[in-house]
Formats: sequence, C-alpha cells, structure tokens
Amino acid sequence: MLKLYYAPGTCALASHISLEETGAPYETVRLSFTDGDQRKPDYLAVNPKGRVPALVTDRGILTESPAILAFIAQSFPKARLAPIDDPFAFAQVQAFNSYLCSTVHVAHAHRLRGSRWADDEAAIEAMKKKVPQSVGDCFDLIERQMIAGPWVMGDNYTICDAYLYTIAGWLEGDGVDIERFPKVRDHYKRMEARPAVQRALSQEQAAAAA
Amino acid sequence: MLKLYYAPGTCALASHISLEETGAPYETVRLSFTDGDQRKPDYLAVNPKGRVPALVTDRGILTESPAILAFIAQSFPKARLAPIDDPFAFAQVQAFNSYLCSTVHVAHAHRLRGSRWADDEAAIEAMKKKVPQSVGDCFDLIERQMIAGPWVMGDNYTICDAYLYTIAGWLEGDGVDIERFPKVRDHYKRMEARPAVQRALSQEQAAAAA
Repeated sequence: MLKLYYAPGTCALASHISLEETGAPYETVRLSFTDGDQRKPDYLAVNPKGRVPALVTDRGILTESPAILAFIAQSFPKARLAPIDDPFAFAQVQAFNSYLCSTVHVAHAHRLRGSRWADDEAAIEAMKKKVPQSVGDCFDLIERQMIAGPWVMGDNYTICDAYLYTIAGWLEGDGVDIERFPKVRDHYKRMEARPAVQRALSQEQAAAAA
Repeated sequence: MLKLYYAPGTCALASHISLEETGAPYETVRLSFTDGDQRKPDYLAVNPKGRVPALVTDRGILTESPAILAFIAQSFPKARLAPIDDPFAFAQVQAFNSYLCSTVHVAHAHRLRGSRWADDEAAIEAMKKKVPQSVGDCFDLIERQMIAGPWVMGDNYTICDAYLYTIAGWLEGDGVDIERFPKVRDHYKRMEARPAVQRALSQEQAAAAA
C-alpha cells in the first residue's frame, strides 16, 4: 500500500489530496516540522533531502511533488487526474507544476527558509521583505496566463489543481491578498468544495489533534 | 517542426542536447541574455516568464526544462530517453529533474539572480557568498545518493543525464571544484564524449560566432 509522509502546512498536501482523489487505499505518516522530525535519522533514511512529501511504493521511495503527482495520475488512470495519453497536454500539466515548484514555492520559501541561501541575519530579513512582491508577481502571471478555468487546465480537473490550491493557501501568510486574483480565489473556493480536499484536510487535522 | 528558444550557458542546453539525441529535425533560436532579449516583447509573447527554454510545437508552446525534457522523451520513444512505459521509473526520472530545477538550479541562481529575492545590495552579496556551500551541498547529495552509474538512472541514458551535465557545467563558476565529486566528474566526461552533446555545443558556438 502506498504510504505518504507529509507535514501539515506543506506542499505535501497536494499529493495527499491527489491520493484521496484516486479513491485507492493509502496510509499517511505525519511529521512535525516544529519538532524537526524531517531532520531525524529515521526520516533521513526515507528521504535524505529532509523534505516532504515522500511516497513509499512497493518499488521504492519517490520524492518531489511534481514527480509524485504525475506518478499518482499515471498509476490510477481511472481517476483521470492528468492527460496521460497525450504527451503535449501532459507536458502542459508538468510545466505548470514545475513553475509552482521551482519559482512560486521558491519565492515563498524566502520568508521562512532564507538560511538556505544566506547566513547573514540582515540578508535573511531582506529576503522576507521581498516575499509579498515576488510571490505576488508569480500569482499575477498565474492569474493572467495560466488558469484556463474552471480548472487550471480547462474543463478537466488535474493534479495541477491540488498543487495550485496548496500553494495559494500560503498567500495570506506571505502577505499577499488573494482578492487581487479573482480566478485564483474562485479556484480556491471550488477546491474547498471538493470532497477529496475536505477529506485530506480533516485527516491532517485529526492527526494533529491525536 | 519543433523550435527551441535557448540562450548560451543556460539550462536550455539540456533540451538542446535531448533534441539532438532524438535525431529528429528541429530549429533553434538563440537569445542573448547580455542584450536582454528575454525581456523584449517578441520573446515575452513566446514565454511571458522571460526565461528559457521555450519549445514551440505544432500544438503550442511549452516551457520549463523538466516538462520539455519529458515531452521530448515521450514524443520520440525510439530514442529511449526515459522509461516512459513504467510510471515508477518515469517518476524517478521526474524526481531527479525536479530536484535539479527546484533546488540545484535555484541554489546556483543566487549567484547572479539574487535580485529576484531581495532588493538590498548587501543581501544580494550575502546570497552570492553562500552559493559555493549551497550548490556544493546539492552535489554532495547527488554524488552520494543519486547517480546509479554509469548514467544517472543506471545502465540507460535518460533526459536526466543531459540536465545533470548542463548544471554540472556551472560548478566552476559557482566556486565548486567538480573534483570533489568523482561520479559527477566522470559523468561529465562521459557526456562530453557523446556525439549529440558535441553537436549541440558546436551549434550554440556557431550561432554565437555568426
């Protein structure tokens, strides 16, 4: 059975939602970033990068959100989570997810993870200061160019939607008002109405309370 | 015919090499980052992100290296550039490429593109200073955990190899000695011996001289 390692509030939510969308059985393991679980030897044996998500499969362990999301879509074709038989349409899905991981998530990470890229305290503060602008610019582009509507790729819900929803959930903390982006805001609400999203969120909350 | 927009010295080289590996006909368009071509209206109409690579296909334009690389592999299955019929093995390829784009390329980008993440000059200098360490840490992990050998994924050459070669080519400029990573160094030399790599490089050099 697939097993997803996640931490609350992280991009692992996109994989969690996508697993829920498939209807297939899976397990989850919750890490606490507050307790530094991701840096403990047990978890580094799962993912030496010390990040989430990680997905344990019967073939081995997968990391990196875009790879895990595509794997879920390809492994459960009946859930129709990506246009897996059309290389061009699939590449559009991949390009969107790649932009989220390598540009949008990275812009966001400069708020709390600046020490990855500088040691100087003042530099880390300067990075925090620019996050509302850099994340805002990313969502400007998403709003103007990247949401076909009603879902990211148009009429068909895909793995892109779970990933966008996850990262859009960080906007408030990043000091960016989602109301600036009506398509992103409406997409966010549309996602909140999906049973799979509600189930993934309530599982994460139940695990936190346990 | 496919048309690749690239700039010399950028991650677009991975897509260029991969197109060469297919043996299929394609065109290239060279941008000069020195002249700011990527910010000119003509190119922003191709890729509103103002980055390379961009691949023009008969269905539309694709961006983001991992997406373009997977598209090339899926569109030219005879070139066997990825295990496209095995979702788990394909996800391993994707995970490697995703790590390169979202962590390794990003660490490198703090040397010359710090203004994406801070406005303060001292902060931008502080970012530059950490690049040898952050890029070095990434390649430590690649060396220890990620190269199966002789190619990244083992016996079969894949799109991961062109991408790793491209980013390993930046190590010297990033102040990291490739000799610290014998597997990466040997892989780099193995890549230099491939005719497709030599053809892609000489095309880029010929375009620069023209």
